[in-house]
Amino acid sequence: MANLTFPFDTETYVSRRKILMESVGSGKILFLGNQDVGMNCEDNVYHFRQDSTFLYYIGINLVNLNAILDCDSGEVTIFGDDASLDLIVWMGNQPKLAELGAKVGITSIKPSSALADYVHKDIKYLPPYRGRHEVTLRDLLGVTSLSPDMGLIHAIVKQRNIKTQEEIAQLDQACTHTAKMHETVLRNATPDMMEYHLVSMANKYVFDNNLQWSFPTILTKNGQTLHNHYHGNQIKEGDMVLFDGGIELPSLYCGDMTRTFPASGKFSSMQASLYNIVYDSYQTALNDSKPGVFYKDVHLAVARTMVEGLKSLGLMKGDVDEAVATGAHSLFFPHGLGHMLGMDVHDMENLGEIYVGYDETVEKSTQFGLRSLRLGRRLVEGFAITIEPGIYLIPELIDKFKGENMHADFLNYAEIEKYRNIGGIRIEDDYIITADGNRRLGEPLANDLVSIEEMRTEAIA
Amino acid sequence: MANLTFPFDTETYVSRRKILMESVGSGKILFLGNQDVGMNCEDNVYHFRQDSTFLYYIGINLVNLNAILDCDSGEVTIFGDDASLDLIVWMGNQPKLAELGAKVGITSIKPSSALADYVHKDIKYLPPYRGRHEVTLRDLLGVTSLSPDMGLIHAIVKQRNIKTQEEIAQLDQACTHTAKMHETVLRNATPDMMEYHLVSMANKYVFDNNLQWSFPTILTKNGQTLHNHYHGNQIKEGDMVLFDGGIELPSLYCGDMTRTFPASGKFSSMQASLYNIVYDSYQTALNDSKPGVFYKDVHLAVARTMVEGLKSLGLMKGDVDEAVATGAHSLFFPHGLGHMLGMDVHDMENLGEIYVGYDETVEKSTQFGLRSLRLGRRLVEGFAITIEPGIYLIPELIDKFKGENMHADFLNYAEIEKYRNIGGIRIEDDYIITADGNRRLGEPLANDLVSIEEMRTEAIA
Repeated sequence: MANLTFPFDTETYVSRRKILMESVGSGKILFLGNQDVGMNCEDNVYHFRQDSTFLYYIGINLVNLNAILDCDSGEVTIFGDDASLDLIVWMGNQPKLAELGAKVGITSIKPSSALADYVHKDIKYLPPYRGRHEVTLRDLLGVTSLSPDMGLIHAIVKQRNIKTQEEIAQLDQACTHTAKMHETVLRNATPDMMEYHLVSMANKYVFDNNLQWSFPTILTKNGQTLHNHYHGNQIKEGDMVLFDGGIELPSLYCGDMTRTFPASGKFSSMQASLYNIVYDSYQTALNDSKPGVFYKDVHLAVARTMVEGLKSLGLMKGDVDEAVATGAHSLFFPHGLGHMLGMDVHDMENLGEIYVGYDETVEKSTQFGLRSLRLGRRLVEGFAITIEPGIYLIPELIDKFKGENMHADFLNYAEIEKYRNIGGIRIEDDYIITADGNRRLGEPLANDLVSIEEMRTEAIA
Repeated sequence: MANLTFPFDTETYVSRRKILMESVGSGKILFLGNQDVGMNCEDNVYHFRQDSTFLYYIGINLVNLNAILDCDSGEVTIFGDDASLDLIVWMGNQPKLAELGAKVGITSIKPSSALADYVHKDIKYLPPYRGRHEVTLRDLLGVTSLSPDMGLIHAIVKQRNIKTQEEIAQLDQACTHTAKMHETVLRNATPDMMEYHLVSMANKYVFDNNLQWSFPTILTKNGQTLHNHYHGNQIKEGDMVLFDGGIELPSLYCGDMTRTFPASGKFSSMQASLYNIVYDSYQTALNDSKPGVFYKDVHLAVARTMVEGLKSLGLMKGDVDEAVATGAHSLFFPHGLGHMLGMDVHDMENLGEIYVGYDETVEKSTQFGLRSLRLGRRLVEGFAITIEPGIYLIPELIDKFKGENMHADFLNYAEIEKYRNIGGIRIEDDYIITADGNRRLGEPLANDLVSIEEMRTEAIA
């Protein structure tokens, strides 16, 4: 039996498709569901991960399905094949597509082989993110280069960017699981473990609850490397550990959190000083994130809090606003404050991050650091976002900035050298934008220095 | 830092390529290394898995590399790009390709963008198993349908089918880890756990040792479903659990084992009767597997042992040889006795199972059951193989056979119905063919009924 869940009722899927078809207006939409992907041959596969857009509108978490929505007639057809006896011997009894279609309000089911007859050159489709989608689209359309439909992309983004109450309930669940996974590591990691032992602890939470991770776990004593997936170092007394991990529910709604903690019970005083600046920056983001505010402005306010803190430590100098305007702080904070969250950890990144996080009212910056901000647009009630400020000492970047004497009016390179090997600190939680502000998604896990040190002191006691 | 290991010395890689180029004779060979594969967008990826053939000949376990071997000049070139500073900020310092090339005896390194200039229409390549390979090959060659080179496939199969002593040492390690993973589950599973709790135990062994699985774990109380990846059932007293799982080393050499055990301390008498038939069949395979013997004949000898056992239980009847010749036993044993093992769990399945497991001296059968035998050819010293007999009661298959009154001279349907819901039993271990017989790979884990029951009795005590 496949691992199928239908988190929402039939009417939800019917209504989602109706809204989309009205928004797109006319023509046909082709949604490609995901296939399995071979690790080293076609039949030895990674765990199946349905396409998020397909699951959002079609609702069936099963391999090898495609769908066409006819905006003119309103008809929706699923293309797929019921299991043969041969397949039942190998894979077990599978639910019939007709039964599954009924659960999501779709009665028209056709065999996969019929798909080509229903695809015409002007059908609207999304950009492929897997090679197999690319091949399927090329072959169906008889072309060698693709033209995804911008109107379709915008209509989907508009709809999926606003989370409904029932979606928020799924995000709450995913974030609660994510917090519990983090707490497990915070309360059980001990100095002298290998990084992969901590990864294994986190994974045990995931698999004990029959869940998946929403992205490859970042768990490292080298938190200054932003997307570090190497787990082969031994952790030592005095190190900080940065753990950025999230859990994905069977419905695909997911969480994304980061905690940074001392391997021993206490942060060193240098580590603590930086930690508290990140914490203050996080508070700035919490205060400022509400409907009507550009998230780009929240990012810049956070940057100012950081510069103030770094000035008090002597790592930066000069006028705070000028420092932020020139991007001097990007030496320490080279990424964005956060991103949209939903059925994808970077929600709808496959449709184009720029369409999800920006609109005609705000342009993406080309400045180092700010150009990595995935979300810049005005916040709207129902947006699910991450808030994730961080401070990093990246030796390669320090050498580059120093070598070119960049931002010399704002950076105290002599002081910075003293922190050169301290690593990286990030605090990240997930929030839903409410009518007048924001609310943390899921059960909370403390992120202030005192609470982190308390959990760590108990862990190594 | 990427997770790179070089299990073999430079000379090994040089020699492997030399043998291949001599065997192919002339022309150029293109090896495509693997890219990352996006789960739900290009940048949110599954764990990286290098292509086995690429790693066998080129030795570098890193994403986004390709290579060309010129059989005429003997020159070997790697196409790839060193990390930019931007990438270092996100992914950490990466080893330079020139350093990595030196470790595997390759000094010619060119940028990825140069690859197209070196690919000509008559370059020899392998069949793609990922969509991305398909797109790359189509674009490089300017074609819409591909023609992999049969001479290249045969040369690679000939070379990789025979494991060297240093490869056998890797397989021993992988199989020892695999046995320990199985022992962990055997000794710790308790009745009333969910199947996914047992999967989580197995995964903990994998991740605590910084390894990977060699294929998606099969762990189920419904062992009659041969490739069952559903883990959502609760296990109960009286159930049998079938666990088929394997571990892959960073070198990609892997193990593949199956144990079937009672959820409680003891098998029921019906379960025990079937278990002992599978065990006897396994002993037949051990006795018969040696150089010069067709593995197809070993499979058929095993089938005869099964029929004898099933006759003694009253489930089958009639002449044993005739029953096996007509395929009556395939109701209980619908799969093959085993397959090649190496850097792939079904070794080189991506090149075509038929070329790996069969040759001009033996044809693949079209008979149900026997047609699923992946390895039929004469065994040769240095072959690494699995031995995995099993007996399954598959209700859907019983209904089909019975409904069509198939093999009525050999099948006692009335008796079979009594066993209808008993599930499936398989015993699987990995062997290397030696000069005069075979040797189990890795440290052994008992598979006889008494030892299994002893481990289980201790587990639930």
